[in-house]
Amino acid sequence: MNPIAVTLGDPAGIGPEIIAKAFRDAPEATRGCFVAGDVAALRRAAAIVCGAGGVDLPVAEIAAPRQAHQAPPRCIPVLQVVAPFAPLALGQVSAQAGRVAGDCVSWAARAALRGELAAIVTAPLHKEALAAAGAPYAGFPGHTELLQAEAAAHLNRPVDELPVRMMLANDELRTVLVSIHLPLRQAIEQVTEGNVLQTLRITHRSVGAALRRPPRIAVAGLNPHAGEGGLFGSEERQAIAPAIARARAEGIDARGPFAPDTVFMRARAAPAGAGEFDVVLAMYHDQGLIPVKYLGVERGVNVTLGLPLVRTSPDHGTAFDLAGTGRADAGSLLAAIRMARQLSQA
Amino acid sequence: MNPIAVTLGDPAGIGPEIIAKAFRDAPEATRGCFVAGDVAALRRAAAIVCGAGGVDLPVAEIAAPRQAHQAPPRCIPVLQVVAPFAPLALGQVSAQAGRVAGDCVSWAARAALRGELAAIVTAPLHKEALAAAGAPYAGFPGHTELLQAEAAAHLNRPVDELPVRMMLANDELRTVLVSIHLPLRQAIEQVTEGNVLQTLRITHRSVGAALRRPPRIAVAGLNPHAGEGGLFGSEERQAIAPAIARARAEGIDARGPFAPDTVFMRARAAPAGAGEFDVVLAMYHDQGLIPVKYLGVERGVNVTLGLPLVRTSPDHGTAFDLAGTGRADAGSLLAAIRMARQLSQA
Repeated sequence: MNPIAVTLGDPAGIGPEIIAKAFRDAPEATRGCFVAGDVAALRRAAAIVCGAGGVDLPVAEIAAPRQAHQAPPRCIPVLQVVAPFAPLALGQVSAQAGRVAGDCVSWAARAALRGELAAIVTAPLHKEALAAAGAPYAGFPGHTELLQAEAAAHLNRPVDELPVRMMLANDELRTVLVSIHLPLRQAIEQVTEGNVLQTLRITHRSVGAALRRPPRIAVAGLNPHAGEGGLFGSEERQAIAPAIARARAEGIDARGPFAPDTVFMRARAAPAGAGEFDVVLAMYHDQGLIPVKYLGVERGVNVTLGLPLVRTSPDHGTAFDLAGTGRADAGSLLAAIRMARQLSQA
Repeated sequence: MNPIAVTLGDPAGIGPEIIAKAFRDAPEATRGCFVAGDVAALRRAAAIVCGAGGVDLPVAEIAAPRQAHQAPPRCIPVLQVVAPFAPLALGQVSAQAGRVAGDCVSWAARAALRGELAAIVTAPLHKEALAAAGAPYAGFPGHTELLQAEAAAHLNRPVDELPVRMMLANDELRTVLVSIHLPLRQAIEQVTEGNVLQTLRITHRSVGAALRRPPRIAVAGLNPHAGEGGLFGSEERQAIAPAIARARAEGIDARGPFAPDTVFMRARAAPAGAGEFDVVLAMYHDQGLIPVKYLGVERGVNVTLGLPLVRTSPDHGTAFDLAGTGRADAGSLLAAIRMARQLSQA
């Protein structure tokens, strides 16, 4: 199997530290993984995480992705994919840190698109730093759009022919969002038959590949009680239900629209047993993210669906306030690595 | 202390059965409570819940609310507040059932407004049955509006001078909603400085009375990431933040607006420890109800804030599909009874 690249993230944030912790604490999960980043940044993070000297956590520079498989357990294989740089102040927005973070993601995207990687796991970047880095990164609100642009360039197709969706998942719940970073008023305008159907198709294909069977998809309504038969809104009847009907005609196991306030509870795979559904289609950002995050963010994984590569990431940001303390939790990054492996073996 | 009235609910639904179960299973919690309803309906429910004969669960007709205190434990004191009626088909919408349910609520509201009751706990009614009952009930979408109208009439004031808000609460989370049963598009229009401030004042007063200290109130944003500094929407800056500032100037401990996808997690009083906040102000129905219901609905309690009486109810409907089986769970009704007692002793 090809190796999995873990991108550095913003070097002023917690990214390097949680990467170091993940390799230290989970040798099985990180086997065959390497860091697409900067050797010095990882050495500093290893020292922070392990105390002065860092003797407990060696960092090994590798010359090519395939050498990731040869690294001994608890040793961090790092491929230097950016020009070496002087240490950056931790916890501060800087254009240089933004550029380093962006360059690592670009490198990994291209390597994955060439077929050299099984998956990409991206450590967090900082939106303001990315914007400060200027072209080409200033135009991308985050990882997803950058990866979408790389994939479109690789395939020589317009970006809008590569629709992507964000999935958030933890041990108990998966949700795929029709839209993400939009004002709620604009998000409502995105709830069209076409967008819901496209989300259903992407979800069916991607989640089905991971589960190796057709997923049971629940579709949330937009309005309270899914519109209560039209009393509290018309989008269910005009857009969501027709999209479900068309998806079902294509053989997709989509059901709904269901009342938003109970569909996530119904889909939740609680410790006591399986949920009614494998994944819930959420009509807007917070509808899906509130339940996924409610029990704590440390296990959440963000998956980009629809790209011709596998990409996962932890469900948190750069946490500048924690950078340098060694206290950041690597749980979500490790969950992202495990999910990347699962998706890429499908 | 005055007695607590538990209204019958729609007699074709699970209301009578969960009332019977509550009195059977929780003699301490139901002490000083009585049913404002119909003796025959409770006798039938007791027989369903306890098996043929109903010898385990006697129903005692009382002549006045104060006699509730004299009933022995596990005996159900019922005050006949409607004209006796022939048994109704279970699990079916009927105008007669709607009228009975509405009459019980009206009776209890008036008794509470006269100062004869400590609180009202309302078993579920069915919106269609209430509508089928005709005037005056057809004009009320549910309990809240009916109680509001009764209170306004009692005080001889217009209904719109009696603003109310819905609070949903369970063991881990309380949330108060700026609006409830509106299409999401219209709910966004309700997020005004005035409405948010009014919600803050009602929450401060009511939750403070229950806790016997000023509550720590978190205010959710409307948009993803609470608008991310204006990038994803302007309501946070134009309406929500100014309302918080005005509330704080009045001595209300309100903070925010916070990112909706993490504020409920932060406020959650998990088994491991207290949450950061006592209550979260949600900007619309599903924002607050998704997290409250996520861990299961059986413990949720609905509280109407702002009325000159204490009113709580279980967080579920008439469940016509379960009526007559004896399988409906009384957990939410019992939680509502406990919360009513707590609020009325404050």
